[in-house]
Amino acid sequence: MSEYSEHDRQGISVGLVEKKFFTFAAPPGELTLESGAGLGPVTLAYETYGRPDPENRNAILILHALSGDSHGAGYYSPQDPKPGWWDIMVGPGKGIDTDKYFVICSNILGSCMGSTGPSSPNPKTGKPYGLEFPLVTIGDMVQAQKKLLDHLGIGRLLAVIGGSIGGMQVLEWAVRYPEMVTAAVPLATATKHSALAIAFNEVARQAIMADPHWNGGDYYSEAKPSLGLSVARMIGHITYLSDEALRLKFGRRLQERHDFSYNFDADFQVASYLRYQGAKFVERFDANSFLYITKAADYFDLGLQHGNGSSVEAFSKTRAKFLVVSFTSDWLYPTYQSKEIVSALKKNGRDVSFLEIEAEWGHDAFLLPSERLTALLQGFLDRVYREL
Amino acid sequence: MSEYSEHDRQGISVGLVEKKFFTFAAPPGELTLESGAGLGPVTLAYETYGRPDPENRNAILILHALSGDSHGAGYYSPQDPKPGWWDIMVGPGKGIDTDKYFVICSNILGSCMGSTGPSSPNPKTGKPYGLEFPLVTIGDMVQAQKKLLDHLGIGRLLAVIGGSIGGMQVLEWAVRYPEMVTAAVPLATATKHSALAIAFNEVARQAIMADPHWNGGDYYSEAKPSLGLSVARMIGHITYLSDEALRLKFGRRLQERHDFSYNFDADFQVASYLRYQGAKFVERFDANSFLYITKAADYFDLGLQHGNGSSVEAFSKTRAKFLVVSFTSDWLYPTYQSKEIVSALKKNGRDVSFLEIEAEWGHDAFLLPSERLTALLQGFLDRVYREL
Repeated sequence: MSEYSEHDRQGISVGLVEKKFFTFAAPPGELTLESGAGLGPVTLAYETYGRPDPENRNAILILHALSGDSHGAGYYSPQDPKPGWWDIMVGPGKGIDTDKYFVICSNILGSCMGSTGPSSPNPKTGKPYGLEFPLVTIGDMVQAQKKLLDHLGIGRLLAVIGGSIGGMQVLEWAVRYPEMVTAAVPLATATKHSALAIAFNEVARQAIMADPHWNGGDYYSEAKPSLGLSVARMIGHITYLSDEALRLKFGRRLQERHDFSYNFDADFQVASYLRYQGAKFVERFDANSFLYITKAADYFDLGLQHGNGSSVEAFSKTRAKFLVVSFTSDWLYPTYQSKEIVSALKKNGRDVSFLEIEAEWGHDAFLLPSERLTALLQGFLDRVYREL
Repeated sequence: MSEYSEHDRQGISVGLVEKKFFTFAAPPGELTLESGAGLGPVTLAYETYGRPDPENRNAILILHALSGDSHGAGYYSPQDPKPGWWDIMVGPGKGIDTDKYFVICSNILGSCMGSTGPSSPNPKTGKPYGLEFPLVTIGDMVQAQKKLLDHLGIGRLLAVIGGSIGGMQVLEWAVRYPEMVTAAVPLATATKHSALAIAFNEVARQAIMADPHWNGGDYYSEAKPSLGLSVARMIGHITYLSDEALRLKFGRRLQERHDFSYNFDADFQVASYLRYQGAKFVERFDANSFLYITKAADYFDLGLQHGNGSSVEAFSKTRAKFLVVSFTSDWLYPTYQSKEIVSALKKNGRDVSFLEIEAEWGHDAFLLPSERLTALLQGFLDRVYREL
């Protein structure tokens, strides 16, 4: 398609990309998880954009949020209607410039997007794991990504970058493998979920588990718990937006009709939008993966897991330069949580830059086009590369 | 019980109270609803505390929120473990002093707490209405309460007081029956729901309707949609609290065990609390009533319904003195919405006082003990009574 090629020629996109898979921990060499359970074999789906430089100094790992995948940028085919999830930021001349850097985007353990998760076949039974899949943690996800980097021959990353649950992985990377992380960019994230974030995740999980089709996680050969997952996604979706975003986007506007239905139809556009988001999500995401990944995020507590309860002590293990970014209207991972990260890093004398970006779109802002964030990332990565 | 009598003697409680019922609009005299539908007969449950003064000048109507009822204060029996929902505010010497005022607490149309709603028998079939029950509005609820006051022989109210959806009824009273309302006290409320509030209500309704036991609203002779209603309540419950309240109340504290379960149990206290709240609610509340009342709240738009789209025009119809109160951490009905009420009243030259109370408990704050609110209500009601 000429329009697509045009984009590509203008450096707007990394162009055609390919999903790759790396499998490790094949029995009997299981991966030992933080819970103590073993898991294997393990497959991670990943993609790469740009090229490694001769000295292997330009690798950047980008990490996705809850429902993301390894498809961070580019298109799978010229007919592909949509590029990867962070195509606005990753590409030639973009915030994460693929003309300069070799970018790896890894899917997470527990996902349903090509990596091993609860919908993968359990080698013991040949059937999908379901709840036989062990609970994985953010640490386990990062441990698996480390194996992928070993496989790719990357001993040191120029930067690890991600938002939300991807940002938790960034923090975990910087603490767990300090010798490998030159720079860390946690966006719209926290060292641990607030009670409010746990509360929303818990209710979303309850919505899934209340669906009789969930069937204790064993639904892969039957009807799926689509209604439950749809409600879970709607709950999540509200928390990714903000009061202001919803007001600007929908306000109290009604669907295309002139008056109230006086029944339980979706009268308001916001209701219709949420129902659509819920229904669309069900087509692409696995309910059990939603349970596992949200639970991993709720469990994440950097200070508890790496610093005897103190995030200051946990960050003492890091060696990276940090760029911490929050967004004004993000009430799921509010700015005060980013400031706690900054404060703990400063107490350790670390090189840390912080910016709170004025944004009305809530938590989702980190995924939306932002000249501010683009310029910030460009400048920060340039500096880190220069200072190597 | 001596302990109870002691309370009573000290003026802590109004003492023993009785739920009463008023039935009107018996066929063929149906109540015409805002939707155009007719409804009858209609029963409202109500209670009264204190006594009317000889000139009938001291009547105060208090109005409850979504899941409340007519039991605003006192105890049904000496063994009763809990008093009415606003017992902290309504009683001898309290913020709404029953030694001075005659207080009426009315249940709302559409509820399941003794008033006509979707769980009531449909006179046409003898079976519960279910979705045959017509959609009712805040205006319809107020219209029904007016019939109750006529029945009680009260031509003029000293004050109408309520929070949240009860506050919407206060605003509706002041606009719909201005000649009857001397003073109006809307607490933690708005002239219309924000898109965010609609979004949460929509998802809560979807959770109920996703439960197969909901069965299109026809479940009264079968198993109830308890799981769906429980999820709906959990969603609501989170929105009634605040980030700060949840942090103070629960933080990331785990249930009584030393480590993570590494399964989908409620590890965190906040998760367990929400599950408990959901399960408890299901015992006392009807899922269809939840649908009807939340939809009525979403439809409420004072400016649209009474002012050609302008709340300033709508408030021009009022004659009451207003006391408007919001709470700092209430993100469901944030202060800016109360300020919009104040501003619209001021543009009409109305007598209006406004206070934003510093409170960490979110929307629920209006129901919790507050010396500030108690003193404020006492002073305001004293003044209004004095100026009669």
